[in-house]
Amino acid sequence: MSGGEQQVLDRIERARRRKPVVREELITLAHGSGGKATQTLVEAVFLEAFRNPLLATLDDGATLPLGSARAAFTTDSYVVSPLFFPGGDIGDLAVNGTVNDLAMCGARPRYLSAGFILEEGFPVADLRRVVASMAAAATAAGVEIVTGDTKVVQRGRADGCYITTTGVGVIERPGTLSASAARPGDAVLVSGPIGAHGAAIMLARGDFGIEAPITSDTAPLHDVVAGLLDALPGQVRTLRDATRGGVATVLNEVAVASGVSVVLEEAAIPVRTEVTGVCELLGLDPLYVACEGRFVAVVDGAHAQSALDALRAHPLGAEAAIIGAVAAEPEALVLLRTAIGGTRVVEILVGDPLPRIC
Amino acid sequence: MSGGEQQVLDRIERARRRKPVVREELITLAHGSGGKATQTLVEAVFLEAFRNPLLATLDDGATLPLGSARAAFTTDSYVVSPLFFPGGDIGDLAVNGTVNDLAMCGARPRYLSAGFILEEGFPVADLRRVVASMAAAATAAGVEIVTGDTKVVQRGRADGCYITTTGVGVIERPGTLSASAARPGDAVLVSGPIGAHGAAIMLARGDFGIEAPITSDTAPLHDVVAGLLDALPGQVRTLRDATRGGVATVLNEVAVASGVSVVLEEAAIPVRTEVTGVCELLGLDPLYVACEGRFVAVVDGAHAQSALDALRAHPLGAEAAIIGAVAAEPEALVLLRTAIGGTRVVEILVGDPLPRIC
Repeated sequence: MSGGEQQVLDRIERARRRKPVVREELITLAHGSGGKATQTLVEAVFLEAFRNPLLATLDDGATLPLGSARAAFTTDSYVVSPLFFPGGDIGDLAVNGTVNDLAMCGARPRYLSAGFILEEGFPVADLRRVVASMAAAATAAGVEIVTGDTKVVQRGRADGCYITTTGVGVIERPGTLSASAARPGDAVLVSGPIGAHGAAIMLARGDFGIEAPITSDTAPLHDVVAGLLDALPGQVRTLRDATRGGVATVLNEVAVASGVSVVLEEAAIPVRTEVTGVCELLGLDPLYVACEGRFVAVVDGAHAQSALDALRAHPLGAEAAIIGAVAAEPEALVLLRTAIGGTRVVEILVGDPLPRIC
Repeated sequence: MSGGEQQVLDRIERARRRKPVVREELITLAHGSGGKATQTLVEAVFLEAFRNPLLATLDDGATLPLGSARAAFTTDSYVVSPLFFPGGDIGDLAVNGTVNDLAMCGARPRYLSAGFILEEGFPVADLRRVVASMAAAATAAGVEIVTGDTKVVQRGRADGCYITTTGVGVIERPGTLSASAARPGDAVLVSGPIGAHGAAIMLARGDFGIEAPITSDTAPLHDVVAGLLDALPGQVRTLRDATRGGVATVLNEVAVASGVSVVLEEAAIPVRTEVTGVCELLGLDPLYVACEGRFVAVVDGAHAQSALDALRAHPLGAEAAIIGAVAAEPEALVLLRTAIGGTRVVEILVGDPLPRIC
């Protein structure tokens, strides 16, 4: 092991022993990035106060024992800007996002709630458009929006429309999927080309004067996930949709939670040419750019090809790829073997290059 | 029947036949009041788009069949201003509010999710205070906060901190409580003096230079509700916590949903002297002022006294009262017999005298 690698390991060991501390006195946009600052805030403030075994897993949702049934329960607030963008809007994003978090728990999505925070002066026509989009997304995903709430705040106290969706799904298969379940020898797959949602939002803001034919990848993933789980009973360890913080952040969470190393092959990671182009212009790494219709799967290495076949059998997984493998060491680290033969550490997202992406 | 009464009935009949229409082009604060404008928005926009039998009841929560269990599911977004007020803060308000909505469905509250929308620049110390308050309220109510989400928006795009809590509870008793279940001959009770939460918030804003020893009534109601349901098995028709829009609005919802008349006795309605005083100064009717720890119960008239005894047996119901009765006619109307012997119609709340009360 080189001196540099030893330093990295020492740093991680220190981080693991250290109690997470929020050093900032004021909330910054980075606290909402989904990356390192969010993680520290969640661990130091929320987990510390709400400490209970269900929350402590910090997975995309909680698994609830309800009578003889097991239910998955997950929530997300949506503050995306702009509200309407190529490929979708805040409405289908809010439905698909919660449907996907339920799917990542291995649950069949069933019921959604929707809480609206509206800004005084928001056009009713825009609200109707958002709601129609939610209804269509709910129908497509086979879920019902069964309860809700509406609040209105004064002008300048919101930004048009924020939506919080919460979902309940039924877990019908045995076993529990978790970020902490990855083991050395597992394979890492992604369900399709990454980064399109984040790139579409950046372009929709129009701040950069760039035009490119990129649409958001927002889509409900429960069906492609069901195909994967059916094809590999008991062999799927972890599912995570690669939203805020992108594939890099999700895999860092898996590496830390499972105490393993994830080794990615750069050449194997699917990214559309247009997305690569936009990311280069904006100085972004696609590994950190949010998807809203892509997920990472960690599966038993012996079944990697079956997993790939199962994903590719579904239109939303047609461009799936095996992008890496899980190793025992260096613990809690994501490494990338670059196309030119080097290896670099892929850190968790620091700061927030793309605020309000979802 | 007088000509005036006939006019009222004709108007109601027209309203019942008319499809609800949102006439405004822009969202106003009244759309968040919990009163008439909110109801129209919900019916014309949300119910129309999301139409399904669970949502259509428009009760405080939905009842979900999950395997062999029945679960209650409810959501609320909290945008109260100020965040901290005498008797509570947005944190315990958000927990108690969702606990109470579950209790109103006859469910034992079990699991909560919490979605935070934070404004850039919000003090981390304030967030800690809110979160500590949520944790204490959750412990007091016997619920666990098992999943959550944090988003951050730029300065001027929120107001410090908004929280959306969603709850899942288990319905262990047979039957369904609903606003549509009231029948002629039923008794109407309230669990304690009304209007304290709204009055406390108004005073906390400091806009009026009035000082009075009023604290919010925010409290978890599941325990006092359980006592009532145990004492009157099968005899409780409707439970509603009297939040936005107050007792007047809740009872209008019951009158319309059940197709009955609710006749209130003004002299029987408990209001603390300080709250009456503040309401008089501000030109508010306590019947429309929000409570966050009081509920209305409609029960079989033959068991009114047992219901009252059951409520008074709990500290949170010590000042409960029988405030009225349900009659067959005039359908869909709330009437108030005033202390001086007259009778007036108590309309649903129009406009919003108290924006951002919860």
